[in-house]
Amino acid sequence: MKFRLRALAFVAGAVGVATAASTTNTEPIQPIVRTPPADSRMVELGKKLFFDPRLSKSGFISCNSCHNLSMGGTDNVRSSIGHQWARGPINAPTVLNASFNVAQFWDGRAADLKAQAGGPIANPGEMGFSHEMAVDVLRSIPQYVDEFTRVFKKAPLDIDQVTLAIAEFEKTLVTPNSRFDKWLQGDAKALTAQELAGYQLFKGSGCVACHNGAAVGGNSFQKMGLVAPFKSDSTSLGRYEVTKQETDKHFFKVPTLRNVELTYPYFHDGSAATLRDAVDVMGKVQLGRSFSADENGQIVAFLKTLTGDQPNIVLPVLPPSGDKTPRPQPFE
Amino acid sequence: MKFRLRALAFVAGAVGVATAASTTNTEPIQPIVRTPPADSRMVELGKKLFFDPRLSKSGFISCNSCHNLSMGGTDNVRSSIGHQWARGPINAPTVLNASFNVAQFWDGRAADLKAQAGGPIANPGEMGFSHEMAVDVLRSIPQYVDEFTRVFKKAPLDIDQVTLAIAEFEKTLVTPNSRFDKWLQGDAKALTAQELAGYQLFKGSGCVACHNGAAVGGNSFQKMGLVAPFKSDSTSLGRYEVTKQETDKHFFKVPTLRNVELTYPYFHDGSAATLRDAVDVMGKVQLGRSFSADENGQIVAFLKTLTGDQPNIVLPVLPPSGDKTPRPQPFE
Repeated sequence: MKFRLRALAFVAGAVGVATAASTTNTEPIQPIVRTPPADSRMVELGKKLFFDPRLSKSGFISCNSCHNLSMGGTDNVRSSIGHQWARGPINAPTVLNASFNVAQFWDGRAADLKAQAGGPIANPGEMGFSHEMAVDVLRSIPQYVDEFTRVFKKAPLDIDQVTLAIAEFEKTLVTPNSRFDKWLQGDAKALTAQELAGYQLFKGSGCVACHNGAAVGGNSFQKMGLVAPFKSDSTSLGRYEVTKQETDKHFFKVPTLRNVELTYPYFHDGSAATLRDAVDVMGKVQLGRSFSADENGQIVAFLKTLTGDQPNIVLPVLPPSGDKTPRPQPFE
Repeated sequence: MKFRLRALAFVAGAVGVATAASTTNTEPIQPIVRTPPADSRMVELGKKLFFDPRLSKSGFISCNSCHNLSMGGTDNVRSSIGHQWARGPINAPTVLNASFNVAQFWDGRAADLKAQAGGPIANPGEMGFSHEMAVDVLRSIPQYVDEFTRVFKKAPLDIDQVTLAIAEFEKTLVTPNSRFDKWLQGDAKALTAQELAGYQLFKGSGCVACHNGAAVGGNSFQKMGLVAPFKSDSTSLGRYEVTKQETDKHFFKVPTLRNVELTYPYFHDGSAATLRDAVDVMGKVQLGRSFSADENGQIVAFLKTLTGDQPNIVLPVLPPSGDKTPRPQPFE
């Protein structure tokens, strides 16, 4: 506790001598704070499930296939590859810091991470399985049965337990300690002059109206193509698909900009390959302005300061299938 | 050092009082001994490459896709899924303890792990890329360029460096401390009576003629279907494909039985779904005998004692692509 008080005093000291956000943060972006998981055994089980391709019909695709924790929680392709190489209709959003989102999926059709986790398993173009078959597989694996029973105290295991465990694991996937957060917390030297100029421009030109909060986004739905049409080869109508309200057409959940350096390509259609492209397009279609090359460079430099500590993941060892476990069917 | 001597004395003591292999092992199987890697920075680089799907045309398939370190270094499907869902011609062998193999691939066409590592990258039905394109991608990623230069002291990076780093990582993927190894090292209580009976049967009926050494296999080529024809839907002729010697037809590298509990399905065609099936078939086609259900159960129980400590893998964080990095082409 003494150490903690001293650390705070040091931070306060830093604020006193330099241009930095104070510990009583009045910035529109808040630092990410990691909170310990409620149930670490459930998290460990959820991690196994997240990495287990037996939740797919092929035995080849796991949650981590498209939300790859080596690659910012994304797959870094325009649209995901699903069962039998199906081409996904939309760019896979990052799972990192997804617990901060107001809802899940680009159109917000899942209220929370638990509701989201069941989607891809049963989507014919993603994992190509069904909840029933996934549960059958897990119930046939002795070590999983034991582990679910230990965690949930209720047998037999079911899809609610599966998706809850995955969601609890995903809640741990937060990325604190970005350089920008250090700056927010009072370390004036955490940003270069160019990065700070980029942040001022990001605030001053209106990006921050949508990209704010701890996740620098994720907390509202906004129209893609607000001041100029956004041309896309995606047929998704966004939030409208959920609400069927005419006014929700082309509204999408504002993506988090945390770790955006790692989560290329950008937008729901993955059409922006680089941050430079993305900033350019956002300026034009959302703000009605063209950023100069210098301004673009400043904003991109700022965005790269949002890369935080990536989750420290020890690869799980998955329990082996039993003799009666239904086998994957990749080619059937 | 004192502790080590005491530990050895304890082991010797155990040998004195019970039926167990001695520390001067005369068994046909030797325990796995982990040796520290020659160059830990090269290993760390190789780990990144092993997990990096940008070595494939699609940006979706990495070495770990088919040699999944969560699943005994295999993909647990009969034949692997490759670029655009190509169906592989053969079962993916485990990468665990592969450094003990006399050669790599079922037909031994690669002399060592380095030679093997280049194969899948350029195979149209696996990663679907080329060495030139893979190197172009890596050379365009600033953090990789820095890391290769630090490790190899020679620029620009090339495919030899890529495959050497992957091979050096793979050499660390050994699995010591199986219960069977503990028994070999003198711990009489490490095996149950059934497991020990299984080992005696394994030795006594001739399995050990091919499955011996530290990897319990991997050190010779043998005919599949030695005493009775092995019926298979695989068209592979095994070692013959490399030597073109008539006498090598249907000869395959004897697979390691280390971690065989995790590496299902079995045989070069993946036709045996369970250990029970595999033991049954091997008895018939290699030894000309039918194991009873009890005998089969004993051998299977013994085989499960060969599961060692799985590699402790902290998932690497991959360096992001640069603005000029060629993008994956999953659907082209």
